[in-house]
This record gives sequence, structure tokens and C-alpha cells, in this order.
Amino acid sequence: MIRANDPKLKSWVPVPENSDFPIQNLPLGIIKVNDKHHVASRIGDYVIDLAVLNRSGLLGVDFVQRVFESEHINDCIGLGKSLMRDLRSRLSRLLDDKHTDLASDEDLRKRCLIPIRDVEVCMPLDIRNYTDFYSSIEHATNVGTMFRDPENALLPNWKHIPIGYHGRASSIILSGTPVKRPKGQLKGKDDAVPVYGPTKQLDFELEMAFVTCKSNDLGNTISTDETEEYIFGMVLFNDWSARDIQSWEYVPLGPFLAKSFASSISAWVVNLDALKPFRVEGPTQDPKPLPYLQFTGQHNYDICLDVYIESPMFIPAKIVHSNYKYMYWNMAQQLAHHASNGCNIQVGDLYASGTISGPIRDSFGSMLELTWRGTDPIKMPDGSERKFIQDRDKVIMHAYAKNDDVRIGFGEVITEIKPAD
Amino acid sequence: MIRANDPKLKSWVPVPENSDFPIQNLPLGIIKVNDKHHVASRIGDYVIDLAVLNRSGLLGVDFVQRVFESEHINDCIGLGKSLMRDLRSRLSRLLDDKHTDLASDEDLRKRCLIPIRDVEVCMPLDIRNYTDFYSSIEHATNVGTMFRDPENALLPNWKHIPIGYHGRASSIILSGTPVKRPKGQLKGKDDAVPVYGPTKQLDFELEMAFVTCKSNDLGNTISTDETEEYIFGMVLFNDWSARDIQSWEYVPLGPFLAKSFASSISAWVVNLDALKPFRVEGPTQDPKPLPYLQFTGQHNYDICLDVYIESPMFIPAKIVHSNYKYMYWNMAQQLAHHASNGCNIQVGDLYASGTISGPIRDSFGSMLELTWRGTDPIKMPDGSERKFIQDRDKVIMHAYAKNDDVRIGFGEVITEIKPAD
Repeated sequence: MIRANDPKLKSWVPVPENSDFPIQNLPLGIIKVNDKHHVASRIGDYVIDLAVLNRSGLLGVDFVQRVFESEHINDCIGLGKSLMRDLRSRLSRLLDDKHTDLASDEDLRKRCLIPIRDVEVCMPLDIRNYTDFYSSIEHATNVGTMFRDPENALLPNWKHIPIGYHGRASSIILSGTPVKRPKGQLKGKDDAVPVYGPTKQLDFELEMAFVTCKSNDLGNTISTDETEEYIFGMVLFNDWSARDIQSWEYVPLGPFLAKSFASSISAWVVNLDALKPFRVEGPTQDPKPLPYLQFTGQHNYDICLDVYIESPMFIPAKIVHSNYKYMYWNMAQQLAHHASNGCNIQVGDLYASGTISGPIRDSFGSMLELTWRGTDPIKMPDGSERKFIQDRDKVIMHAYAKNDDVRIGFGEVITEIKPAD
Repeated sequence: MIRANDPKLKSWVPVPENSDFPIQNLPLGIIKVNDKHHVASRIGDYVIDLAVLNRSGLLGVDFVQRVFESEHINDCIGLGKSLMRDLRSRLSRLLDDKHTDLASDEDLRKRCLIPIRDVEVCMPLDIRNYTDFYSSIEHATNVGTMFRDPENALLPNWKHIPIGYHGRASSIILSGTPVKRPKGQLKGKDDAVPVYGPTKQLDFELEMAFVTCKSNDLGNTISTDETEEYIFGMVLFNDWSARDIQSWEYVPLGPFLAKSFASSISAWVVNLDALKPFRVEGPTQDPKPLPYLQFTGQHNYDICLDVYIESPMFIPAKIVHSNYKYMYWNMAQQLAHHASNGCNIQVGDLYASGTISGPIRDSFGSMLELTWRGTDPIKMPDGSERKFIQDRDKVIMHAYAKNDDVRIGFGEVITEIKPAD
């Protein structure tokens, strides 16, 4: 067992019950202190300023100060898996209630342990490349049934290839950043010509995404086993979509402006190590994938996923309860596939899962599926209906892995929709 | 007229006849000098080290030294169109044979004017986001005819939308960098299951790409008129493609690994100002595009495009002579469309045209079209045939705008194909 995962560990920092951030989590993010960006971790309702902590010498001698005094965590995670394991382990020890080095140094403690309400939490990553997969079989089946043919909902390639597409990195934003309803070309089936106007089918997509911390040279592939060295951790991800823009633009080259107006990520990148207790078997893959996509060990994760809608008229109403474990293709397969043509992975790339849907309606990860393309609206607490997302709605996502001993959470992704200009 | 475009200008630096880089061009790129990267321009067979020149004070006071002592031209062009116009104008004056400031300073001249054979020319851009359009009507028609339906070759959205898709930025490489034949999943029509192996249908795509030098805030659109402030210049672009990987993977989310193994760009980014004399009318657009895609002025460019294949068995054989002026959708429309959903453009983004094909076979911009999907191979000088690109072939592209007075060229994009592992 990784020592920092020991469920018996307790911190001298108070951690509220059911917090996403016990001592067993210790994710990485970015805070702004006196107008400067620092890499930080989080425990309970506190952030830990790693730039201050490292300067004190308590983290040991392995970490260059520069990587913590940075606008993004890229240079830090770019030190590699093994040093990131070290960092989490040292941090765990300093916060452990059996160790007093940091606890007893009041001056340092006050400077590096800051209540989260007193700091600005910033975008953790400088996202270099962003890819969105399409790896939930339930989602792909639902979409195929709605838009193509219920008898042949899955396309012939789907069970052979972890299908994915390149997305837009520039428009990925932090949880809490509002999104303006995008405009685009819309053309209904019976319209003679398209019009340019605000989307009428604004949708969320419930996703998780992984972040890479290692690069390969262009031309070199990565085996499923080797992917472990490349994947630093995960975030919760809302891949905003405009369904009407998408349906008119996406043939033959795929989704484009229907996606590139915004995608929202959670603030704290959870180290894959912290999720180790939640590794589970994935669904049986039949037909057996080609050798380069075969893998050893467990690569699915039991992570609960909830989505709520809140509006000026009602408090958050839960509309989805799903789970990341439903994924048909796992991260090891996604990354091995991505590099199977020699494509070079970079530090700070983001690889999203695609919409995560489970087997029953409550576990569908988008309004498109929940309302079956708007034909079966959701009733909200104030009696209103939702086919898609309305102006001033807030979409709130939560992700957490939980067993009898520990809860490792991702915090939230919360986004308010502002009206179009 | 922009003074630096005056065809009567002559430089005291010798410029060979038919050079792509007369005093009227003055593109930007990156050179490596004593292990340090500097921004440079080019005239004839010399590069001009702008870091050295700026330090001398001869460029005036407007330019921060930092932007020239950089691994990429991003920070330099990020100063904006107006300062880039200034830079080109001041450079033009210093190189003009009527001015002696630089010509007469032997020491400085020797330090900042370096024969191109004595320097390493590097990747000019840190490419932030990369989008590939699909804007040649001849290319889209050819592909639609081959793969779908000759009667309805163009999809219904094509004449309304400058169709494009997000591409992979990490795998864009400099001319001269060899490309290893990529592997991927291949499945012929009659194969029961796919196999993983080297592509048998490796192809080039003859494209041009533009580079942005200004960013908009997420949520804000850009009008076609405003695009002038965003587009710094252009490069020649070979968007390598594996047709067999593509045909199996691309439905429904578009091209992915069939493209992300490599795309090659030319080393010198040509300022759009230098191309002003070559602006021409584009094809008539019928139906008339929606108002946000309408534009004033001329936005097509008369740029000749040639492609050669060279092999160990024969000297370069020209297989394509095409022209950028054939583009149906122009750059102003492409960029306005890209930002029409509020997508944020960044400094150093690359926006490629899509394969540029003209009306006749010799002007088709890919082997796919030239050989009509391999059914009509090209005869090479040694008697061999090409359906697609073979190992050890070199694909060489040239682009140049030329009239009676001046030739503004892009240099070459040359790439050798290495066998798969």
C-alpha cells in the first residue's frame, strides 16, 4: 500500500466529515497569493502553499523552488510520477497528527496553511493539447439510437477503437467561470437555410479527464503498461455542448464550434495514486481488443458522479447520479491508442473521457440523453421543465470516490449560464 | 502602398534572381546562434539576427529585447500588427541600398547578417492551438465524389459553413524533419476485423496556414473586418494523412490519428503585408453567406503552389501545380467563423486551409485525388508508380507569389518518409 493512502492517517488540520479533501487526497492546484501564483495542495478547508512550504526546507531537498512559483502546475508535475509520489508522501507526513515539524512551527504554519475562503484558486493547468474520447458504451449507444439507427446504434469501429477527437485547448476554463450562451449556425431539419443565433440546445456533458506529466518523442508509441508513468492525475470535466450547432456542422469532420466555446474543469488535480483504493475491473470487452490495446491490472475507477441544476427559482436539484466505472475503454487504452501512431504526448495535456452514462436514465450524463433529445423533459422543483440548459441555470457537478474508510473527492465544477449578447 | 512593398526597392545584400526572399518579403523565423534562440528575418541567402540588430539600437526604441531573445516568434508577433508593420518597415530601410547605417557598420553587419548555411533554422512557433479547415471546393467535391455520392458530392452544410476541425498542435514539425511511417488500425472493406500495422496509404495534403498575433476574450466574436488585426502572416503547410487509418476511424467524430502523427510547416512566416500586391477576388459564393461571414475587400491571394516527389531513384519530379487563389472560403471568413461562438483565439495559433485543389487534375493537392484513390497511379521518372507516398520518398512543396516586379516566396517544406519500426 502507498503509505499516504493509509485510511488510518489523521491530520492535525481539521477536516470536516465528508470533505473531498482528507489527508489521503492531497491534490495539486494553483492559488494566487499577493498577486503571485503558487502551486498548492488542499486539505479540508485549507490550502497548503507549496512555494512557502518548500522554501522552508521541510519538503526536503528534491524540489526546485521554481516549479512551485509558477502560474500552473505543469512544471511541477513534469518532474515525473516518482517525484510527485514523493511530494505527496512528504506532505502527508507533515500533515499527519503524529508529526509535529509543521504543526508546531506557528509562523510557518500560518504562512503556508491558508483558509480556502481567503485565497483565490486559479486555473491549475496550462493545457497544451486537449483530446475528448467517446468511451462510454451507454452514451455512444444512446446517441447512436437517437441520431442514427436503434438496431445498429454502435458504429462498426466503436468496439475496436477508443474513438476520440481533438478539441480546443484555449477555451477550457475553471469551475466558477460563467459561460455566455454561444451563438452559431442553426438549421432545423425543415428549415431551408441556416440562421446565426444563440443555441437553443445548450447541454452539459458529464466527464472526467486525465492530465499527463511526461512526454514521448514524436514517432514513439506508448504501451498500456507504460501509460502509468504518463498519467499524473484526474479532474472533473464539463464539456459544454451546443447540440443544434453540432448537428448542422459535424458531418464529415466532427464536432467543432459546438464544443469550442467552453469546457469547465475542477480546480484540484487528484493524484492517480490517491485513487488506487478505488480501482475496479472494467466491463468485459468483446471482441477482444487488438494486442496494443490489451492491458494488465485494473484500470477502471469507482468514482461517483452527480449533476445538479440550480436556478434563481430553486435550490440545487440532483438530475444525474452516475459512475466513472462504467467506462468501456479505460485511460491506459485511451493513451496507448493516442500514441499508437507515434503522436507525441506533452506535459499538461488533458484527455477527457467523453460523456459518462450508466445503464439507467438517472445515470445518463447529458440533457440530450436525460430528456431523449428534448422529447421527455425533466421536471424541476419549481414546476418548470428543462429540455436543455436555460440562461441563469447553474450546472453543478460533483465527483468522489468513497468506501467505508475514506472519501477522495474532486470538489465541484460549477458554471452559471449567462444570456447571449 | 506599404513602403516596404515598393518593387523598386533594392538591397545592398545580394539577392539571387528568383529568390523567395527579396527585400520586399522580410519574413520572421527562429535561428539558433551559440546555442541560443533568436528571432530572425531573411533576405536572399542571409538571415538577419534581430536580437543582435535590436541591441545595436538601429531598430529604434520600440522593441523590447526580450521578444527577440526567444525560442519562438510568439512574443514578437504578439506585439501586434502595427508594431510588426513598423519592424518590417525599419528592417526594409536598413537593408535598402539607399541607406548606409547598417551597410557601413562592418562589425555589426557581420554579427547580424549571417549566411543561411552557417545557422540552424528552428521551429518558428510555439503553436498553441491548431485548426484545419476544409475550404477548397474542388477538394471537398473530389473527396465527396470518391467516398460518398458523385451526384451530391458537397454536403448540405459546406456552402454555408467554412467547415473545420480541431487538430493536434504537438505534432506539427519543421520542414526538414523526417517523418516515420505511422502505424494504426486498418480495416479494408472486406476484412472481418481490423489489424494494427503501418499505413499503406500515406499521403500529403498541400495546404497554407495562417498565424494569429492577437487574442480575444472568451465569449467575444470577431468580425471579418477585425480579422485583419489578428492575422500576422502565413506559412506553407503539409498536413500528412494516413488515408486507411482515417477511413476506419473518422465516423462520427472526424479525423484523429490519421492526422496527428505529423504536419510539416515552412520555416519563415511571411507577413501578410508582404502579400498585399497579390490579393485577388475569390470565387463567387452562392448562396450568399450569412451576414457574419460577409466581407469587404479582397481576401484571396494568388500564390503558386508546387509539389515534387524525390526518391533515391530519381530527382524531384513535379506532380502538382496549384494555387491558393482557388480557396472558396477565405481567411477572414475562416477566422470570423471560428470566433462566431466566442471561441478565444490565441497568439501563435495556426489555422490551416485544408487541402488546396484546383479545377484540373494537375492542381489536385493530395495523392488521394491525383491518383483517384489509387486507381490511377502516377508514373515517376524511373518508371515506378505511386499510388501513395513510399518509404524514402521526399515530398517537397514550394509556395510563391509572383508578378512582373517581385516574387514573395515561402521557401520550401521538405519531408523525407522513413520506414515504420
